[in-house]
Amino acid sequence: MPRLIEYDAAPPEVRAVFDAIKAARGVPDVNNFWKALAVDPPSLKRTWDSLQQVMTPGALDARMKEMLYLAASMAAGCAYCTASHTAAARRAGMDEAMFGELLAVVGMAAETNRLAEALRVPIDPDFD
Amino acid sequence: MPRLIEYDAAPPEVRAVFDAIKAARGVPDVNNFWKALAVDPPSLKRTWDSLQQVMTPGALDARMKEMLYLAASMAAGCAYCTASHTAAARRAGMDEAMFGELLAVVGMAAETNRLAEALRVPIDPDFD
Amino acid sequence: MPRLIEYDAAPPEVRAVFDAIKAARGVPDVNNFWKALAVDPPSLKRTWDSLQQVMTPGALDARMKEMLYLAASMAAGCAYCTASHTAAARRAGMDEAMFGELLAVVGMAAETNRLAEALRVPIDPDFD
Amino acid sequence: MPRLIEYDAAPPEVRAVFDAIKAARGVPDVNNFWKALAVDPPSLKRTWDSLQQVMTPGALDARMKEMLYLAASMAAGCAYCTASHTAAARRAGMDEAMFGELLAVVGMAAETNRLAEALRVPIDPDFD
Amino acid sequence: MPRLIEYDAAPPEVRAVFDAIKAARGVPDVNNFWKALAVDPPSLKRTWDSLQQVMTPGALDARMKEMLYLAASMAAGCAYCTASHTAAARRAGMDEAMFGELLAVVGMAAETNRLAEALRVPIDPDFD
Amino acid sequence: MPRLIEYDAAPPEVRAVFDAIKAARGVPDVNNFWKALAVDPPSLKRTWDSLQQVMTPGALDARMKEMLYLAASMAAGCAYCTASHTAAARRAGMDEAMFGELLAVVGMAAETNRLAEALRVPIDPDFD
Repeated sequence: MPRLIEYDAAPPEVRAVFDAIKAARGVPDVNNFWKALAVDPPSLKRTWDSLQQVMTPGALDARMKEMLYLAASMAAGCAYCTASHTAAARRAGMDEAMFGELLAVVGMAAETNRLAEALRVPIDPDFD
Repeated sequence: MPRLIEYDAAPPEVRAVFDAIKAARGVPDVNNFWKALAVDPPSLKRTWDSLQQVMTPGALDARMKEMLYLAASMAAGCAYCTASHTAAARRAGMDEAMFGELLAVVGMAAETNRLAEALRVPIDPDFD
Repeated sequence: MPRLIEYDAAPPEVRAVFDAIKAARGVPDVNNFWKALAVDPPSLKRTWDSLQQVMTPGALDARMKEMLYLAASMAAGCAYCTASHTAAARRAGMDEAMFGELLAVVGMAAETNRLAEALRVPIDPDFD
Repeated sequence: MPRLIEYDAAPPEVRAVFDAIKAARGVPDVNNFWKALAVDPPSLKRTWDSLQQVMTPGALDARMKEMLYLAASMAAGCAYCTASHTAAARRAGMDEAMFGELLAVVGMAAETNRLAEALRVPIDPDFD
Repeated sequence: MPRLIEYDAAPPEVRAVFDAIKAARGVPDVNNFWKALAVDPPSLKRTWDSLQQVMTPGALDARMKEMLYLAASMAAGCAYCTASHTAAARRAGMDEAMFGELLAVVGMAAETNRLAEALRVPIDPDFD
Repeated sequence: MPRLIEYDAAPPEVRAVFDAIKAARGVPDVNNFWKALAVDPPSLKRTWDSLQQVMTPGALDARMKEMLYLAASMAAGCAYCTASHTAAARRAGMDEAMFGELLAVVGMAAETNRLAEALRVPIDPDFD
C-alpha cells in the first residue's frame, strides 16, 4: 500500500493546496491522487496549478476537456486515471451512450495506431 | 520504404474497399494507411467496416469523435495517426484554439498518468 | 544521425562480437543495431550472448520465435525492430499470408488490450 | 469494482452475442471481458465479429495465433489480456516449455526495442 | 513537416518566452520543441515555467536530473526527447562511459518490466 | 494469482540461482519476481546474470543506477518494478527529497515526451 498524506498529518504548504482543491471542487476531501502526490509538495502545487490552467473552459467546454483527458488516459493504460476521469467526465455531463462511443473510438484508435506503426506508413503530403 | 498497394496493381477485393473509401470521403485516392494495409485484404476490409461503424455520428458528433481519436493517437505516440487525425479533425471543424487546448489536455494527462502510476495510487471508492 | 561504429574503427572486443555475428549469420557485415550498440561494448556482448540463447530453437522453432519477436516489437511500436524482425521472420519462412494474419492478430490485440484496461476488467478466477 | 453485465440483466442484442460466444466456445458463461464490454452493445458485437474473423485458423493455426496474441498482450503490459490469453494458448496446446520460451522472447524483444529506439538506429536498406 | 514558429513571426507572448529561454541557456535560438509548442502560447509558457522549477538543482544536481530525464525519455520511446536530452546530459557532464551504463540500465529495465508484468508478479509486502 | 516457485519446490538449477541472489544481497529469501521467473529456469539464470553485470558500480555508482532503473520503470508504467526499485533505490541511499525530485522529472518528461511526439518535432541538427 503506497503512502497517502492525510490532511491532519500534512505540512502547511500541502494543506494550502488541499484547501484550494476542496474549495474549487466543493468536496469535503481530496482524491487519493493528491494525497499520494503530497510526498513532494512542489510537485503537488505545480500539478494543481497546471491542471487548473489546462482544464478551465475555453475554446473547448468542460465536458469535452474531461472526455479528451479520459481518452488519453485510456490510451496510456492508466487504471487510476481512467477511473478518476470517467467519474469526472460523468459529472461534467458524459452519459452512457457517449461513454460507449468514446470507448469504441479509443479501441479503434489503438488498433489502427498499431497497424500504422507496424506497417511504417509514410505520412501523406497533404496532412500538413 | 514499406510497400504500398496502388489501385492499378490491386486485386478486385482491395479495389472494392478503395472504391468504397473514395466514395464515402469524396476523394480521388485513398491515404497511405489503406494502401499499406492492403497487403492483407481481409484486414483492410474489416478495418474499414469497423471504422465506418465507430466514426458514424451518434451520441457524439463527427468533430468530437475525431478529436477523441486524435487525443488517443497522441497519447499512444503514433506519428502517422497523429498527422492523419489532426488533418481529419481540422476538416471536421477543429480550429487552432481547440487544437491548442487538446494538446494541453493530452500533455497534462501524460504527466498525471505517469505520476498516478509511479505512486501506485489506490482507486477512490466513490469513482465506481 | 546517430553514431554507428564500423568494423574498421572498432576496438578489439567489439570486433570479436561483430565476427561472431557475421559467422553465426553468414553475412558480410552486421546490421545497424549492432553498430549502434557498439558504443557500449559490454552491452553489445551481453545482448548478443542473450539473443543467441533466447533464439536457439527449442520447444519452439526458429520461425515461430521470430514471429513472436515481431509481434512483440509491433505491439511496442518500435519501427527499427519491426523492420528488422519482419526481414528475419521472412528468412525463417514466414510467407505473405502468415504476415497478414500476424498483422491482424497484433491489431486486434491492441484494440482488446485497450478495451480491457479501459474497463478495468477483473481477471476471471479460472484463468489461473 | 467496474460494472459487469450478467446475462439475466442483459438486453436482447447483448444476449445474442453472449449466446454466440457460449456456443462457439462450448462454455456455460462468457468471460468478464465480454460482460464489461456489454456496456456498449455495438462495440460488443463488432469486437466479437472481428475476433472470430481474425482468430479463425488460416495460414497460421489456432495455437500459433493465440501465442502471437499473448506475446502482443505481454508487450503492451495488459494484465487481464495476458491472463486471458495465457489460458487460451494453453487450451490451444501451448505447454510449459513453449510458455517459457515465449516469455524469454518477449523479454528480450523489450530490451532490444528500447535499445534500438534509444540509439535511434537507422533502418538497414536491405530490410525492405 | 510540422509547423514551427520562428521568432520573427511570433506574437509578443511567444517572444517573451523565447527570450527567457535564450537568456537562461545562453543560446542564440531556441530548440525546435519550443518553436513547435508555440502553436499554443499558454502551453509554451506553462511548460517552460514547469521545466524551470523541475530542473533547478536541489537534492539532485543538474547532471543527475538530465540523466533521469533521458532514462525516462528512452523508456517512453520518444526519439526527439532522447536526442534532445542526450545532448543536454552531455552538456551537464555525462561522458561516454556514463551514457553506456545508462543505456544498459534502461535496456535491462525494459526487459524486467515486461517480464514482471507478463508474469503478473504480486508486490512483495516489504516494498512499502 | 500467478504461480510462484518456492525454494523447497524448486529444481536444482533454480535453487542455484536463488542461492546466488540470497548470498549477493544478504537476504533470507528472494523477491516474488525471481519466484515467478523461475517458471523458465534459463530466463531466470540469464536475467540474474545480466542484472549483476548491468548493476555493478562503474562510471555510475549504485544509487545512481537504481534511480535510473526506477525512472525507466516509472516511465514504462510497471507497478511491480516501481515498487521494487523504489525500495532498492532507498536502500542505496535515495532519500525523500531525492525521490520527490525524481518523481517530478519523470512526470515532466512524460508531458514533454507526449508534446514532442504529438507535434512531430524534427530533431535539431546540433543534437548529434
